[in-house]
Amino acid sequence: MAQAFERVVICGLGLIGSSIARALRKHGLAKTIAAYDRGDVPARGLSLGIVDEASDNPAIVVGADLVLLCVPVGACGVVAASIAPHLDQGCIVSDVGSVKQAVINQVAHHIPAGVHFVAGHPIAGTEHSGPEAGFAELFDGRWWLLTPTPDADQAAIDRLRATWEAVGSKVEIMPPDHHDRVLAITSHLPHLIAYTIVGTATDLEGHIQQEVIKFSASGFRDFTRIAASDPVMWRDVFLNNREAVLEMLGRLHEDLGILARAIRVGDGDTLHDKFASTRAIRRSIIDAKQA
Amino acid sequence: MAQAFERVVICGLGLIGSSIARALRKHGLAKTIAAYDRGDVPARGLSLGIVDEASDNPAIVVGADLVLLCVPVGACGVVAASIAPHLDQGCIVSDVGSVKQAVINQVAHHIPAGVHFVAGHPIAGTEHSGPEAGFAELFDGRWWLLTPTPDADQAAIDRLRATWEAVGSKVEIMPPDHHDRVLAITSHLPHLIAYTIVGTATDLEGHIQQEVIKFSASGFRDFTRIAASDPVMWRDVFLNNREAVLEMLGRLHEDLGILARAIRVGDGDTLHDKFASTRAIRRSIIDAKQA
Ligand SMILES: NC(=O)c1ccc[n+]([C@@H]2O[C@H](COP(=O)([O-])OP(=O)(O)OC[C@H]3O[C@@H](n4cnc5c(N)ncnc54)[C@H](OP(=O)(O)O)[C@@H]3O)[C@@H](O)[C@H]2O)c1
Ligand SMILES: NC(=O)c1ccc[n+]([C@@H]2O[C@H](COP(=O)([O-])OP(=O)(O)OC[C@H]3O[C@@H](n4cnc5c(N)ncnc54)[C@H](OP(=O)(O)O)[C@@H]3O)[C@@H](O)[C@H]2O)c1
Repeated sequence: MAQAFERVVICGLGLIGSSIARALRKHGLAKTIAAYDRGDVPARGLSLGIVDEASDNPAIVVGADLVLLCVPVGACGVVAASIAPHLDQGCIVSDVGSVKQAVINQVAHHIPAGVHFVAGHPIAGTEHSGPEAGFAELFDGRWWLLTPTPDADQAAIDRLRATWEAVGSKVEIMPPDHHDRVLAITSHLPHLIAYTIVGTATDLEGHIQQEVIKFSASGFRDFTRIAASDPVMWRDVFLNNREAVLEMLGRLHEDLGILARAIRVGDGDTLHDKFASTRAIRRSIIDAKQA
Repeated sequence: MAQAFERVVICGLGLIGSSIARALRKHGLAKTIAAYDRGDVPARGLSLGIVDEASDNPAIVVGADLVLLCVPVGACGVVAASIAPHLDQGCIVSDVGSVKQAVINQVAHHIPAGVHFVAGHPIAGTEHSGPEAGFAELFDGRWWLLTPTPDADQAAIDRLRATWEAVGSKVEIMPPDHHDRVLAITSHLPHLIAYTIVGTATDLEGHIQQEVIKFSASGFRDFTRIAASDPVMWRDVFLNNREAVLEMLGRLHEDLGILARAIRVGDGDTLHDKFASTRAIRRSIIDAKQA
């Protein structure tokens, strides 16, 4: 059983932050839960009853033994800079950003000595945003990756592992750059493609565009759901995982060229063989219980 | 209320054919339902209890007042040729192929005078195949497009419309070439991309490939489901809707180039604007009750 934190402060009470607040509460993992956010989000968090305190003042982190950055990747540096002067010795700082090396580059140098920073990323989410969209079961059975730097505090890593396991996640540790390559193909590239194809459809001549919406079939429907994800979050992901995304996009581009050529010359065997081989990977994913 | 057919013969008792058999039976729309298929499929259909008769002999269509071609698009011509000599005068022939102009080109010239051919396509399906995968509710609330040629028999069109409305579908009539362009972007291109991206992942170096499966996130998981669809069906779709698919792929390719460039030069505004605009189309689809 994971030991409860005295005071957890969640910076950015959106889909992920508010889901963490709900999960920590549900599993009795925090005595006090507070939120740092801006605009009307602190008030919305309080009225939802998912946090005990909420403020747009970064000094709310005073007294925290766990602080979680749950803002878009591009905002992690700014938020780390504003909370840094108020962090207590011994506090653990982590994050949930979808890119890891860039977050570490932006955040680590703001963290005072005696405060333990361990970057992380729960592989769980939906296309919705904001504190209302969260739910306690989001992390159930999902992976939570930790990407500590070589100098990270082992006790902090262990405590985070125990905490995320207690909310139902499977925890794994990997180097940040490796994380960024794996996620580029499993998550970032699919989102880029979904955004593009839905955009391509939007740009079709008026008549056909309406029919695209009307007769939206399986395939496109799934893509529109993916392409309904938060634009700020995804802008930040692409700006901060540029190299891995462009590398994977280059490979995809080559493979698409092979299929396009097979279609053009009527090479049914190549099409059939490519399509048959992808069925196998689906089976592996079902076996790995990620489907 | 649609008038029941005396004898319906379903040629190809797979996912779609067996779903139609189940739906016709459930709604009392056929006195006798028979299947024409090959290998062990006729026996499987009989033992599932979804058809009254089943055979690999095309003469099973004798006496039918409705014959439905539910084989892959590339097999429609062959099947039409083998059943043609056995068709009764006044019989209606339709199909469910995902491409329409090519099916009409392959099938129409086999249909004897006095038999009424009206091509069609239910916009409903799953990634599974075979008679066991079907279910009666597949067409509930979904579109069923009819693409009659200008010389088609109006009474046959009306009767098909009434029948598919009776199984819960919304029926719409459109020209076959128009159908093929709309479906190229809403269904065929998404499948092509999903197959490609899953294939690209499969080709990664062993180590990272295993992690792709293990940490398969939202986005990729959806793509693997799409890419688990039947290889024969999809090979035939691409071979038979070549022009529209390659045209849409060309547009997608241009749009992807714009986003790739924005990522490379760090143009966050372009990324944000593109991503924000696709949210709107998702909303239209939800409003159109297709999501
Ligand atoms: N969504 C997913 O599927 C998913 C999955 C795994 C990880 N992640 C990661 O989780 C993080 C949060 O994503 P989310 O989906 O929870 O986003 P979200 O619902 O949009 O929540 C982000 C919250 O952070 C606030 N915020 C943004 N910039 C801020 C700043 N400078 N100062 C204070 N607050 C700020 C936002 O307020 P405003 O509304 O005022 O901007 C919002 O309340 C991202 O790093 C993302 O990469 C997301
Ligand atoms: N799946 C979807 O999501 C979907 C949606 C809308 C429309 N459609 C269209 O519906 C049609 C059928 O698709 P499906 O998903 O139902 O496929 P399926 O489950 O694979 O069923 C096709 C059936 O046709 C049989 N068949 C193939 N070639 C034949 C031939 N030459 N003679 C006799 N039987 C033959 C197959 O037998 P074998 O197993 O021996 O090949 C199989 O039993 C396709 O034209 C497809 O484009 C599919």
